[in-house]
Amino acid sequence: MNLLLLSNSRKPGGGWLDHAEPLIREILGAGRARILFLPFAAVNMSFDAYTSMAAERFARMGHALYGAHRRRPAALAGFDAVVVGGGNSFRLLAETRARGWLTAIPRAVRAGMPYIGWSAGANLACPTIRTTNDMPVIDPGGFEALNLVPFQINPHYTERSLRGHGGETRDDRIAEFLAMNPGVAVLGLREGSLVRVSPGARGPRASLLLGPGARLFRHRRAVRELRAGANLTALLG
Amino acid sequence: MNLLLLSNSRKPGGGWLDHAEPLIREILGAGRARILFLPFAAVNMSFDAYTSMAAERFARMGHALYGAHRRRPAALAGFDAVVVGGGNSFRLLAETRARGWLTAIPRAVRAGMPYIGWSAGANLACPTIRTTNDMPVIDPGGFEALNLVPFQINPHYTERSLRGHGGETRDDRIAEFLAMNPGVAVLGLREGSLVRVSPGARGPRASLLLGPGARLFRHRRAVRELRAGANLTALLG
Repeated sequence: MNLLLLSNSRKPGGGWLDHAEPLIREILGAGRARILFLPFAAVNMSFDAYTSMAAERFARMGHALYGAHRRRPAALAGFDAVVVGGGNSFRLLAETRARGWLTAIPRAVRAGMPYIGWSAGANLACPTIRTTNDMPVIDPGGFEALNLVPFQINPHYTERSLRGHGGETRDDRIAEFLAMNPGVAVLGLREGSLVRVSPGARGPRASLLLGPGARLFRHRRAVRELRAGANLTALLG
Repeated sequence: MNLLLLSNSRKPGGGWLDHAEPLIREILGAGRARILFLPFAAVNMSFDAYTSMAAERFARMGHALYGAHRRRPAALAGFDAVVVGGGNSFRLLAETRARGWLTAIPRAVRAGMPYIGWSAGANLACPTIRTTNDMPVIDPGGFEALNLVPFQINPHYTERSLRGHGGETRDDRIAEFLAMNPGVAVLGLREGSLVRVSPGARGPRASLLLGPGARLFRHRRAVRELRAGANLTALLG
């Protein structure tokens, strides 16, 4: 498998997807790729507008991008890569499921089609969206997602919290997830960092790249601080 | 109807439920009330432990409290009030639904049984839990909740956000809710504040009480800042 799972889409003050551009270029290859784009996480923007924005950005890297809202899953074989944009994870999953992409995409990606997702698009690659930070503004009809990796990503991970605020911290929330789902690891992926999964002779390999890194949370185990460059292949096992 | 819907369970530095104690005493009345307690929002604490903690707190107000995890919905008629504790809204709704309380409680409350809920317990009183801040650590089998009031509460509301963090702000999230659910109002209830619904000769009345107040969000309408003492009866219409 060939995955690029980004915590978020930009560095503070940086341009959209700029921080990951070299890795995006690498995973998409030298030719002009035909990209299927899932704009379904957009809530306060139309799917057409989100797709136009993404098409412009990927055109600057030499690729042609098309919106999945104007295609049917049977058309997937005609594309070279799947890109899933961020926004609201519940809306993303609801539309991905309703339009039939939830079963089509994993088949193609497991057969080698590159997958790039940021924020909600990284969550969608996990077994479920149970580690999203988003508000459940729409019922997705079940939390099961693409299941491309067997662990959960918490995008936009931060250990910071608002001073004097009584709500749960991010770490509280992840501890709740682990209590309810003790067999599943959670990678708290800091903004600016990403997970790269790439094919290897002895099965897929995973690594943590760029930015400030991540924290690995497991039920009843000490939290592990991971830096960019860390090998994550054991999480695929 | 007779409801007390609290944003949260304590003031910074204050004791558990202390800020609302006069109103809790008022809604429960002078006699020794038999209270049914829903501990189902607890994740990193057992239902027994959460119930013991609540029983001790309500005993100090002269009332006897029993856990719903050890009762069946048919027993509801033998109680004088329902109290729903905070924690994780998804867990709360999943258990409330699975154990049959989701249909039993609205009948009793609409017939006059007092209802007190804080945080997740305030969200449960709304049409759905779509305005919770919690992580969806378990699938509740649908987002529909008790529907005791026709508007949504966002508990722990704050307009503050982490400096330099790229995730959605609370206001972004509520705007997403309104885009997907344009007919439903959202009351962003600040910590320390609560909503009191009480029976009146011409139907139920609602008011915002205590603390720093709330913000009222409606689709395509200006946000309204509301202070403690504001009349919310129009939201019940």
